[in-house]
Amino acid sequence: MPRVAYVNGRYESLADAAVNVEDRGYQFADGIYEVCLLVDGRFWDEDGHFDRMERSLSELSMSMPMSRPALKAVIAALLRKNRLKNALVYVQVTRGVAARNHAFPPDGTVPSIVITAKPYNLAANEALASRGVGVLTMSDQRWARVDIKTVSLLPNCLAKQAAREAGAFEAWLVRDGKVTEGASSNAWIVNGKGELITHPLGHEILGGITRQTAIRCAEEMQMKVVERAFTVAEAQRAHEAFITAATLLVMPVVSIDGRPVGSGKPGPVAQRLREAYLRRCSEIAGERPRAIA
Amino acid sequence: MPRVAYVNGRYESLADAAVNVEDRGYQFADGIYEVCLLVDGRFWDEDGHFDRMERSLSELSMSMPMSRPALKAVIAALLRKNRLKNALVYVQVTRGVAARNHAFPPDGTVPSIVITAKPYNLAANEALASRGVGVLTMSDQRWARVDIKTVSLLPNCLAKQAAREAGAFEAWLVRDGKVTEGASSNAWIVNGKGELITHPLGHEILGGITRQTAIRCAEEMQMKVVERAFTVAEAQRAHEAFITAATLLVMPVVSIDGRPVGSGKPGPVAQRLREAYLRRCSEIAGERPRAIA
Repeated sequence: MPRVAYVNGRYESLADAAVNVEDRGYQFADGIYEVCLLVDGRFWDEDGHFDRMERSLSELSMSMPMSRPALKAVIAALLRKNRLKNALVYVQVTRGVAARNHAFPPDGTVPSIVITAKPYNLAANEALASRGVGVLTMSDQRWARVDIKTVSLLPNCLAKQAAREAGAFEAWLVRDGKVTEGASSNAWIVNGKGELITHPLGHEILGGITRQTAIRCAEEMQMKVVERAFTVAEAQRAHEAFITAATLLVMPVVSIDGRPVGSGKPGPVAQRLREAYLRRCSEIAGERPRAIA
Repeated sequence: MPRVAYVNGRYESLADAAVNVEDRGYQFADGIYEVCLLVDGRFWDEDGHFDRMERSLSELSMSMPMSRPALKAVIAALLRKNRLKNALVYVQVTRGVAARNHAFPPDGTVPSIVITAKPYNLAANEALASRGVGVLTMSDQRWARVDIKTVSLLPNCLAKQAAREAGAFEAWLVRDGKVTEGASSNAWIVNGKGELITHPLGHEILGGITRQTAIRCAEEMQMKVVERAFTVAEAQRAHEAFITAATLLVMPVVSIDGRPVGSGKPGPVAQRLREAYLRRCSEIAGERPRAIA
């Protein structure tokens, strides 16, 4: 079955789904995005993703292209058309199509909205988590406002590619000697006292929705979470490490720059947190109506 | 007459010219661009723009999507279809269309190429230059590799917009206390000794082709060019200031943050350099065949 995408009011086959070459997303990376997970037809961390989407738009002086209920209805329709219940949904909103000019286009320029959906394989994610992943550290070359979830992702792509070429799964980005986050995930370590350490919110990291929920899960389990930056050396001495992202959930990190973290296997804290995260998301989602039946 | 664009091998009306929503240019800003000026059917600074295009692609591990002669033939055809002889030509090359994934797509993924052209009004540029423009200084929030001419331009757009909202024409970006460059131009000042000062090449600025040619013109006129960074305070004490860009040529700056530079009018050094630049470009272009007759 060909995949279907939503583009500016129309459902089209993904192969035909297109935007104008003067879309500001294409010429200027002038737009934002979200990636949300739906399991069994229900949004995980629904409010978090929609809240962040509104914030990202607001930081770029843009507004939501449609109401939240309308957006949810479109996503539900898109999942039905794609016959998906476990899905990663990608939503991108840009400042619209306008004659090329760095300054914003005239008031009234209509934002562009694109939504795609693809199957999400929880079993494959479980398998990856049972092995854990390796990360490669490198210089954080991104701009000063990575707290906004924009499509200005070239540095993230270059970092991810460098990691993959070195045989690592993810890049850990280092600014002023401290790990900020991964190329597409938040970075965590667990020290000898069992404390979970992750970079504080601010302009230097993207405030992950999975990160936020994972903090709640940890605190509910009486684990201590310390939001502070850590060095690569500290990470390499850590008992455990892991990353969080909507697509990865809680994913154990078993090596940093080719050196094993702790035992070199997924650690017990990361595993407990992963289970708690899965439980919490499915419970909260279960209390709400399905996005699609 | 509707404008015509070139998109991946086809000439289409600009309104219909589109790229797939999974083009990496749209989702990741994973692409580069050039803006070239043609006057009377002839490229200005032709080699400089094509050389830089190759360099930008190379820095992103991409190669030219077609040979230089083929690209020039496409641009010539595009200008004929648009009935343009004085034109700004925009060329964008991205890593192509692929399932969304930060890491590079599989080998063999075909790069996307988009070319648009619009009329260039030299008389309007002359009129603007006779008055000069104002700039507003602000923090340089861009990434660490702005020497690559990528479409990751969101910070530039935000800076330009902030300048325009404050009534200025251009933003001057400041990093570690020093002016790096404008949001879409290189920044220059002229001190009391008549020295032309502009930020040295490096990862912190885009190596402007107009900047490079302007340096040659200045040196041919026995003006001393000093490539070093300068502070905002130094710029405000300068006798003159100006910016260079392919679209602006040499453009006098008459105010910085609302305070007049020198006399508050276009200065003689900037005016002489502008004339020399115009003369040099038209002479060199004149020695070559027209791109279009």
